[in-house]
Formats: sequence, C-alpha cells, structure tokens
Amino acid sequence: MIRSDSASAFITTEHEIAGTRSSGPEARRSAADAALSRRSVRAYRDVPVTDDEVRQLLTLTGRAPSAFNLQPWRFIVVRDQATKDRLQAAAYGQKQVGEAPVVLAMYADMEDTMAHLDEVVHPDLPAEKKAATIAMLERNFGSMTAEARGVWANTQANIALGYLLLIAESEGFHTSPMLGFDVAATKGILGVPAHATITALVALGHGAEDGFRSHRHEVDRVARFV
Amino acid sequence: MIRSDSASAFITTEHEIAGTRSSGPEARRSAADAALSRRSVRAYRDVPVTDDEVRQLLTLTGRAPSAFNLQPWRFIVVRDQATKDRLQAAAYGQKQVGEAPVVLAMYADMEDTMAHLDEVVHPDLPAEKKAATIAMLERNFGSMTAEARGVWANTQANIALGYLLLIAESEGFHTSPMLGFDVAATKGILGVPAHATITALVALGHGAEDGFRSHRHEVDRVARFV
Repeated sequence: MIRSDSASAFITTEHEIAGTRSSGPEARRSAADAALSRRSVRAYRDVPVTDDEVRQLLTLTGRAPSAFNLQPWRFIVVRDQATKDRLQAAAYGQKQVGEAPVVLAMYADMEDTMAHLDEVVHPDLPAEKKAATIAMLERNFGSMTAEARGVWANTQANIALGYLLLIAESEGFHTSPMLGFDVAATKGILGVPAHATITALVALGHGAEDGFRSHRHEVDRVARFV
Repeated sequence: MIRSDSASAFITTEHEIAGTRSSGPEARRSAADAALSRRSVRAYRDVPVTDDEVRQLLTLTGRAPSAFNLQPWRFIVVRDQATKDRLQAAAYGQKQVGEAPVVLAMYADMEDTMAHLDEVVHPDLPAEKKAATIAMLERNFGSMTAEARGVWANTQANIALGYLLLIAESEGFHTSPMLGFDVAATKGILGVPAHATITALVALGHGAEDGFRSHRHEVDRVARFV
C-alpha cells in the first residue's frame, strides 16, 4: 500500500519503521510515521499510564480544530478497576476494556456546550462582539433539534478522536477505539447525560501484542483529481 | 493552556516550537508538536503542492482507524482554478478556496461502501469467512436508513479528517478545514452524489500568514477522572 518507489521522502516504509517501534514516551515519532505504525491493540501490559500523561494527551487532543471553537468533546478517564469491569461487560466482554490501564470514554455534549457559550468565544473580543457571536451561535444551533446538533457535535468530536489516536501513537502509547458497546448501559455506568453521544471508548496503555494490520484502499480508489 | 510546569517532557511549550515553524516537507514534527503549532491558515503563498505529495498525504490519511475497515471516506483533489473559483463562490467567497494550490473536498459515501463490501474484507480471509462478514455488514447497515448510515459514515470520515490535518501540519503544510459552504452547489460543482455527506472542504498549501490561535478549554473543564 505504501509506495516504496516514491520520489518524496516523507513516507517512511513500514520496513524502515518496524525497527523503531517502541512503547514509551521516549519514542516520539512524526505524525506520518505514527499513521503508518498505528494498529488497534487489544492486549495490554501491566505498565501504568500516569494522570499527567493522560492530561497531556487530552491537552493536545483539545487542539483539534473545532468549528466556531465550540469544542463539544468531553472525556471520562477511567482507571478504577471495578468501573472498567462494568464497562467491559457493557462492551460485550472486550478484554481490552478491563485490561488497559486507562479507558477513555469520549463523548460529545452539545447541550453543555450551548449552555456555556461564553466559555468558547475568545476572551479578547470586545463585549459587544462577544454578545453578537453568542447570539449568532444560539440562533444557528438553537434552530436545530437537540438530536441534529448532537449529530453535528459528534462529527467534531471525531476529528479530536483522530488527533488523540495519532498523538498517542506518536508518543509511544497504544490504543484501541471501540464502537461496540451497549450505549445506555455505558452512559449509566459513567454518568454520561442521555442527550450526549458517546464518540468512542478508547483503551490506552502499552501493548502486549502488535495488533492486526488492516488492508486499505489505494488512493486512486478513494480519490479523484480535478 | 499548555502547562509549562509539567514534569513530563512530551509537550513542547509553544515558545520552544515557535522558532521551528517552517513550511516545507523538510520540517517533520511529532504529532504533539503539530497539534500545538497547527492553526487554520486562510492566506496561501504561490508555492505548489505536487500530486505526489497529495497522494502521500491521502495514503497516510487512509490509515485512520475505521470500524469494520469500511473506510467510507472519499476525496476530490481540486487544483483546477476555474473549479476552485466556482467552489469559492459556493463557500460564500472564502478566499482560501480560490487561493490555496489545492482544495480537498472530503466526503463520506456509505452507499458506495455498501456496494463494494468485497473490497474492505481482508483478502487473506477464507472465502466462507469473507461471505459471512459481508452478510453481517449487509445486515447491520442494511437495517439502517440510508440517512442514518450516512451520518455514521461521516463520523468515520471525521476521524480521517483529524489524521489529515495533523499529518499535513506535521509535514510542513498548512490547512484550513471549512464547513461553511452551500452543500447542494458544492455537490453539483464536484459531482458528489446527493446521498453523500461532505465532511469538509480543506484548503492545503503553504501559508502566507500565521493564522489565528483559538483559546481552548482546560483539561479539567472537559475531562473527569474516575
């Protein structure tokens, strides 16, 4: 899939990066290398991920672009084993939920966002401009149903999910994003509001396996040049 | 926002990376640095982006994780000036659409995906397992409305959008993702099927401005630790 005959240098071949795969924060890689090396990992070693590391990952994830700067993404960082065990049951027994040192529940909460628009308008704006921006956002999103704006918010949260997975890999962590779980049960366990959309559960830690490499479309199957 | 008192090393402060900001493929940065430095850029220099560079970006973007390996994302790579001019009009005159050397129209096409499920099941699977996987996917997604599975496909495409923006920045390009455009007009100009969802228009090139830095939520505003 990765063309080894490329004239340009910025795609490293899989062969070249294979020897550099590691699993500590010492192993910083470019986003390109991280995209090539990343696989979903479902078995984890008993190596801790610190709260400080999680905070830094989430700070970086929070730099993802967001229309109108709304940042509707929210996170629950789960390391309590009893909670992880309950989540594992809600995720149909997927072992990485109980085994990874950290499970991130990522969700989009547009109602919380709408209730605090003052937090997302730029603090340097003059008061009048701030009020006008808030009024515009209330008009735009207020005219949508809560469900429709929730769908929209979840697209934004998925951009941030792409950031999170790539940054974690780049920094030497392994991840497994999951969409297979009982939504109502998961919301109940974590106290996620009913109106919110769970973007994904993400197991985070240091892998005990290489993970499975998916085959992917060639560029010409998914892209057209105009 | 970025804590300079952090004990861990992997967040570079903005001050530290400011001096390294550059705009050529020679400037490979980690995903973390790219997340910190990236801003939406709306003015572009007359510096080309080659088809080979675009192909490599899209190859890397196509490594984004995708549930069931469906990869419902599709791209139209626009460099024809007349087409960019028409797109600019459909995007309410946003100047980066006409000015950037490349505009990527990214969309999610779940109907194309469903019509070619044989392309996404792993080629190494035995024929029987392939058929069972395709039948499962047809059942799961076939029971949804086309609209509902289109919404789902667009969440997946947004993960890939996060990849694209971060990888482009990491490799020294600048981008501006846009959601503000007339959807029907844009689909008409580009020949995007009516059932598809346009994930974003993305201007891609080498910036002529630094871009605007959004302020972001503190981690404790968006995350809860359990």
